[in-house]
Amino acid sequence: MVQLDDLDRAILRLLKKDARLTISEIGEKLRKPESTIHFRIKKLQERGIIGRYTIVVGKDLQPKKAAFVIVRVKTPVIEDFLERYLEYITRTLAMLPNVLMVSKSGEDTILVLVGEETEEKLNRFIEENINALPTLKEVVVLPIREFKKGSDIIGFLAGV
Amino acid sequence: MVQLDDLDRAILRLLKKDARLTISEIGEKLRKPESTIHFRIKKLQERGIIGRYTIVVGKDLQPKKAAFVIVRVKTPVIEDFLERYLEYITRTLAMLPNVLMVSKSGEDTILVLVGEETEEKLNRFIEENINALPTLKEVVVLPIREFKKGSDIIGFLAGV
Repeated sequence: MVQLDDLDRAILRLLKKDARLTISEIGEKLRKPESTIHFRIKKLQERGIIGRYTIVVGKDLQPKKAAFVIVRVKTPVIEDFLERYLEYITRTLAMLPNVLMVSKSGEDTILVLVGEETEEKLNRFIEENINALPTLKEVVVLPIREFKKGSDIIGFLAGV
Repeated sequence: MVQLDDLDRAILRLLKKDARLTISEIGEKLRKPESTIHFRIKKLQERGIIGRYTIVVGKDLQPKKAAFVIVRVKTPVIEDFLERYLEYITRTLAMLPNVLMVSKSGEDTILVLVGEETEEKLNRFIEENINALPTLKEVVVLPIREFKKGSDIIGFLAGV
């Protein structure tokens, strides 16, 4: 486990909320001298605790409708084919801009997060790019109705 | 749809990769005067196209094992209870630090992203906090084996 004290964590929490905060603003909020904050952030960056700085795009650039799609692949006679086929499908899907996330989950399953402007376009996208894949056992579409936590992932993952 | 030209999109793409880039660095990369870049970023912020600036935490702070968990709830006799129950479950789950994401997906389904230090701890967490919920129809655990796209969401969502 990483060694982080309360100050490190407080700095990280502030930067997660707004990475544009200046050293002096962070110092003020946490009642610590700028030099301390500067040193801590430098260390956090050097140690890779802060992996990178990025932006979350606003609603206007986010797809309006999103769905998780669970794809289960048929087990082929020659077992070795399964992994190669999953590799091929996931790599191909990852290249599509409407695919926000792809993961291999378990031996024969992939989970995809897709986004589109409208529900109709989203369904067509799934129909044409996922349902159309050969040798699938099952495709379950879970349209996202509401996020209770982590809603930011859409703005984080959305392409520009 | 939002009106964005190629320069706006190029700036957004650079900031997504590294939001610490200075105006002058962006200007150099895109061969545009600093004043132009400054103006464009200001507009992108004002319009909320850039929603916010944030950090992605590194591997050391990320849970080592993560899984998507699909939870299907039994439809109660009194239909009205379903939504209230989903609301209750999702809100409760959202408060747990090991729960990185929660969404309501479809009428009776929720999708949860959970993370833990080890597979054993992850399974115990799911057992105690999800399987233990009353009146579930089905719980499907999809352990994430490999991301092909969007692997960053773990470092984006991880708590500190």
